[in-house]
Amino acid sequence: MNNQDEQLESAAGAGPIVTPTSGAGTSVASTFGAVTSVAPTTSAHVRLRPIDARGVAIDGGLLAERRRTNHEVTLLRGLEEMERAGTVQNLRIAAGRAQGERTGMVFSDSDVYKWLEAVAWELEHQPSAQLQQLAGELTELVSAAQQEDGYLNSYCQAGKPEWRWSDLEMGHELYCAGHLIQAAVAAARASGDTQLLDVAVRFADLIDREFQDGPRITDGHPEVELALVELARQTGEQRYLRLADTLVSRRGHATFVNATFDLDYYQDAVPVREQPSLVGHAVRALYLAAGVTDIYTETGESALLESMQRQWHDATETKTYLTGGIGSRHYGEAIGDPYELPPDRAYCETCAAIASFMWNWRLLLVTGETRFADHMERALYNAFLAGYSLDGTSFFYSNPLQSRNGHTRHHWNPVACCPPNIMRLLASMHHYLCTVSDAGLQLQLYAASTVTAEVPGAGPVELAIETDYPWAGTIAVTVRSSPEAPWTLSLRIPSWARQATVDGQPVAAGDYARITRQWQAGQRVLLELDISPRLTSANPHVDAIRGCLAIERGPIVYCFEAADLPDGVELADIALEPGAEPTDDGLIGDLGGVPGVEIGGIATSFNGVAQTLYADAHAQRPGRTSSPLQLRAIPYFTWANRGAGAMRVWTPVREPA
Amino acid sequence: MNNQDEQLESAAGAGPIVTPTSGAGTSVASTFGAVTSVAPTTSAHVRLRPIDARGVAIDGGLLAERRRTNHEVTLLRGLEEMERAGTVQNLRIAAGRAQGERTGMVFSDSDVYKWLEAVAWELEHQPSAQLQQLAGELTELVSAAQQEDGYLNSYCQAGKPEWRWSDLEMGHELYCAGHLIQAAVAAARASGDTQLLDVAVRFADLIDREFQDGPRITDGHPEVELALVELARQTGEQRYLRLADTLVSRRGHATFVNATFDLDYYQDAVPVREQPSLVGHAVRALYLAAGVTDIYTETGESALLESMQRQWHDATETKTYLTGGIGSRHYGEAIGDPYELPPDRAYCETCAAIASFMWNWRLLLVTGETRFADHMERALYNAFLAGYSLDGTSFFYSNPLQSRNGHTRHHWNPVACCPPNIMRLLASMHHYLCTVSDAGLQLQLYAASTVTAEVPGAGPVELAIETDYPWAGTIAVTVRSSPEAPWTLSLRIPSWARQATVDGQPVAAGDYARITRQWQAGQRVLLELDISPRLTSANPHVDAIRGCLAIERGPIVYCFEAADLPDGVELADIALEPGAEPTDDGLIGDLGGVPGVEIGGIATSFNGVAQTLYADAHAQRPGRTSSPLQLRAIPYFTWANRGAGAMRVWTPVREPA
Repeated sequence: MNNQDEQLESAAGAGPIVTPTSGAGTSVASTFGAVTSVAPTTSAHVRLRPIDARGVAIDGGLLAERRRTNHEVTLLRGLEEMERAGTVQNLRIAAGRAQGERTGMVFSDSDVYKWLEAVAWELEHQPSAQLQQLAGELTELVSAAQQEDGYLNSYCQAGKPEWRWSDLEMGHELYCAGHLIQAAVAAARASGDTQLLDVAVRFADLIDREFQDGPRITDGHPEVELALVELARQTGEQRYLRLADTLVSRRGHATFVNATFDLDYYQDAVPVREQPSLVGHAVRALYLAAGVTDIYTETGESALLESMQRQWHDATETKTYLTGGIGSRHYGEAIGDPYELPPDRAYCETCAAIASFMWNWRLLLVTGETRFADHMERALYNAFLAGYSLDGTSFFYSNPLQSRNGHTRHHWNPVACCPPNIMRLLASMHHYLCTVSDAGLQLQLYAASTVTAEVPGAGPVELAIETDYPWAGTIAVTVRSSPEAPWTLSLRIPSWARQATVDGQPVAAGDYARITRQWQAGQRVLLELDISPRLTSANPHVDAIRGCLAIERGPIVYCFEAADLPDGVELADIALEPGAEPTDDGLIGDLGGVPGVEIGGIATSFNGVAQTLYADAHAQRPGRTSSPLQLRAIPYFTWANRGAGAMRVWTPVREPA
Repeated sequence: MNNQDEQLESAAGAGPIVTPTSGAGTSVASTFGAVTSVAPTTSAHVRLRPIDARGVAIDGGLLAERRRTNHEVTLLRGLEEMERAGTVQNLRIAAGRAQGERTGMVFSDSDVYKWLEAVAWELEHQPSAQLQQLAGELTELVSAAQQEDGYLNSYCQAGKPEWRWSDLEMGHELYCAGHLIQAAVAAARASGDTQLLDVAVRFADLIDREFQDGPRITDGHPEVELALVELARQTGEQRYLRLADTLVSRRGHATFVNATFDLDYYQDAVPVREQPSLVGHAVRALYLAAGVTDIYTETGESALLESMQRQWHDATETKTYLTGGIGSRHYGEAIGDPYELPPDRAYCETCAAIASFMWNWRLLLVTGETRFADHMERALYNAFLAGYSLDGTSFFYSNPLQSRNGHTRHHWNPVACCPPNIMRLLASMHHYLCTVSDAGLQLQLYAASTVTAEVPGAGPVELAIETDYPWAGTIAVTVRSSPEAPWTLSLRIPSWARQATVDGQPVAAGDYARITRQWQAGQRVLLELDISPRLTSANPHVDAIRGCLAIERGPIVYCFEAADLPDGVELADIALEPGAEPTDDGLIGDLGGVPGVEIGGIATSFNGVAQTLYADAHAQRPGRTSSPLQLRAIPYFTWANRGAGAMRVWTPVREPA
């Protein structure tokens, strides 16, 4: 740390590395042509840019393992499940290649598109002749199913022509179109195959005629907006960006006033630019927010960014679960009131965790601030991964933080939006590890990996990142090659880190540690994050978990599961010993060797004495005795992999007897 | 207390006054011919019997006031609202007297029937030429709308003949028929008018042909079962009782396996006789339970009573709100898991409180045990009355125990099941004050009233009950006339009473105080119940209200409402001072003079310092200060009568700073 060219900024008290403005974009090079999910144009209003994912290889650790399972197990099973469910057959019927009645949900075509997007991203970094052939056949089928005028939706085409555009509230037509567009952009970027892009463009042009100039208003389920922006970026066609903006601007005017749910459900009560808070159906709200952020990115309209910032503060300060999950209500699959965060009835749809990850990625690009990456990480390792079984064969739709009776993973549901969404995020995970800026490269998510990136204003850089993160807090970054010009390596210091050092020097959490140097090949930077287990409390306004604490270890939220309790002890009767602190507890064999955590607890028994539900506050509960026991906590995302049993993240601290 | 013929049993430690058996019925006289909602036959398996409601007059106090509002305001407005909503017009269309499209919910006919039932019971004790004329016209319309074969349902008859019996899952055909039957029985009993009974019998005969002997299975929404038992009692026709039993016995065999909701929703996962717990849609579950109890009453089949007792224990020990409300989930309007009792997302439909009242009345008749009357009282004064605005013009459908943003009463909803249900329970409230048994009369619900009843084995008795219950705990019972034979006056001592005396002698809560005498006209018994405000705690398994206490006063649950807080103090920042005790606080003028309660509290402020949602458990919340204040609590049922504002029943006790 004595090189005259280098500078390690200890970020104590530092603000964001840049202040977002709504003016001109930055001068860094466009990512057009790059293989990545979100590719802002050259003039985009972003502080950071994605790098070309072809330069990133995740080669070890938890994320690599989850991606391997996705590749080896889940993608193939997913297509089998879609065949079994009739989802693919629906497209054959639409294409006139099969007879029979369409089956399944109105939006099931989108499952196919998400699967195609997943495979497109997957094949770029992990070839598979089988997957390639299956994706090719499916792409050809989708293309064949498209109607002359560009329309494509099996629900309509399989015998309901009059349905077209007739149920914008719940019909998911544009939602499906959006996923088609995303898959098409993925295929074009990842492999150069534009067969699906041609389909997407024809459909988008029809939508443009019907909605921009025609009589249609907007879709009840946002998703097409972010896809249209990406299509504009991919094709250079500004009409798609304008259409996205139009669809967004038409929300908030009570189009869906006589619909099944209230206006908030559809984000249709308040215009987006005035909306103070994140409301309604969680997945709809979050896909919309991602799309609105994309539109801001390309148009620079400050009212959009201000709305996004307001909604983000509202969401993260009052409506987000510790797991990063969003959605407190089963009814309407909805975000609740501020501080309405019941652990047992948490909905936290896996798709909402994915949509939150997507939104935070876009805000990270716009602002450069680490807090957005913190939220990506929280959602990724907890609410998202919990939705995916360790063996890769089953899924959760909702991800509660407490279950009294267990919760059984499903192999495939009639509503199958989550499984292929999991597949596409895992397949594209390497898009999200790093960003670049003028003479800078930022490591956002840590994984054992190699990174080759073009640092704007400096040149090509190659890094090797060695770590067992998130299980270990040591991250060694070795520069394998560097241009001569100095550039800044920025390391995100997660806000949860109680202590962090870079090469032994303390750095502050919640910002980047930045090292500016003329880098030499072989130079190495050692980041140490304190991931020792810790207790977390909630804002006292979160009524549903009053008197409870949670255990976290690094970015991983822990929970107690019935499988780890002694015989005869019920999870409902467990409390934490006041003052007890969690410590590491070795690796858990029956969960694939993930680290366990232990903490001193108390088991209460009523010794068979029946308890009334309510009693005089001064009365002792009859029969009550307590005994100490050591409790083992497991990573929340690994729960329900040893059968169904009670689980809780937030656990009461023993009340005074 | 020195009369040699008298005996006051202090009930300390005593069990139920009788042990329910599944054998022969009691020997008390039949209530056939009596004016009352539930009239078990002579051979019925009941320990107690309703009395003829013509002998009861509620002449003062809270219940009389609520009934006066019902009579003067709500019944007439209700019919106007049903006209405005098209509910009556639907029957005109069905009768061929009007053209146009039917509007409203599939089950809206039942609103008309509940209104007719309400008016039938109301006119018996409070004549009104206007109501009588309107009910007569409506009865004539219903009669005219009935089809040749007995079928009657406006949804089917107004242009959807193919719909008949096609949607038993959600079509509510038998549900509507049940309410028609109940209205018809009410009219026949209350006034002798059998016009509606003729309609009901024709429809019931059709249902018998279609379901008992025909191809139909059962209805997704129980309600007709209890109505059929009452029709059997009214007409002496045993086929209706058999049909009710058949419909009950067909549940639990997955008839609705591919329906909208899970099998529990329809009480269709487990046969009634094996069902261990109260599950699914709350109103469906509770109407079914009332019907099953009715069937037991007439058949004496022990498996039915055992199931009812199991389900009652499950419900009251794990699934009932402090207010007596049942239904923890908005999704599926459902009962939740045991101990899943979130105050904010409590559904507690007003109809569920009514159905619970109905079920407990039936169990009270069967067993004679006071705990069932305790639950009737709890539901009546809290979950039920909360659904009805003080001015009688607006209603709640759901009755949460906490609201962060307020909850606005509605004048009439598209789903209007609750308002006319409120009307019929208020109109028939005098049916539920007393019961009789061999040589005994039991006072179950206390109200200023006069009671004339035939005590079996003794003779006619007249009592005057003077009290300001539930606001005061003094109940003076004066015998105005009595036969010469001795009989037992039993006074229910509510389980909540910390102290109770009869004529100065302590008596135990949770049982009857019984006085057996040769009564003389003019003799008076003075019951004193300690209704001073008290703090109540919940079983620690109720996670959602951990660390909180509630205030009760007599049978009334209290709450805090934002309207009573000083400016600038938010309800979310209020806690109870540890050790503080509630005391009376005078009458609340802006709530019609109901008694207030005060208690020492703490207001926390964060002084404008932004708070994170989650934090290290060892960190102090920044900016936090607390200051003491006196808090005023109001009766829960009176909330949301001064505009919409935050409210909570369960309030945290201040945590250590």
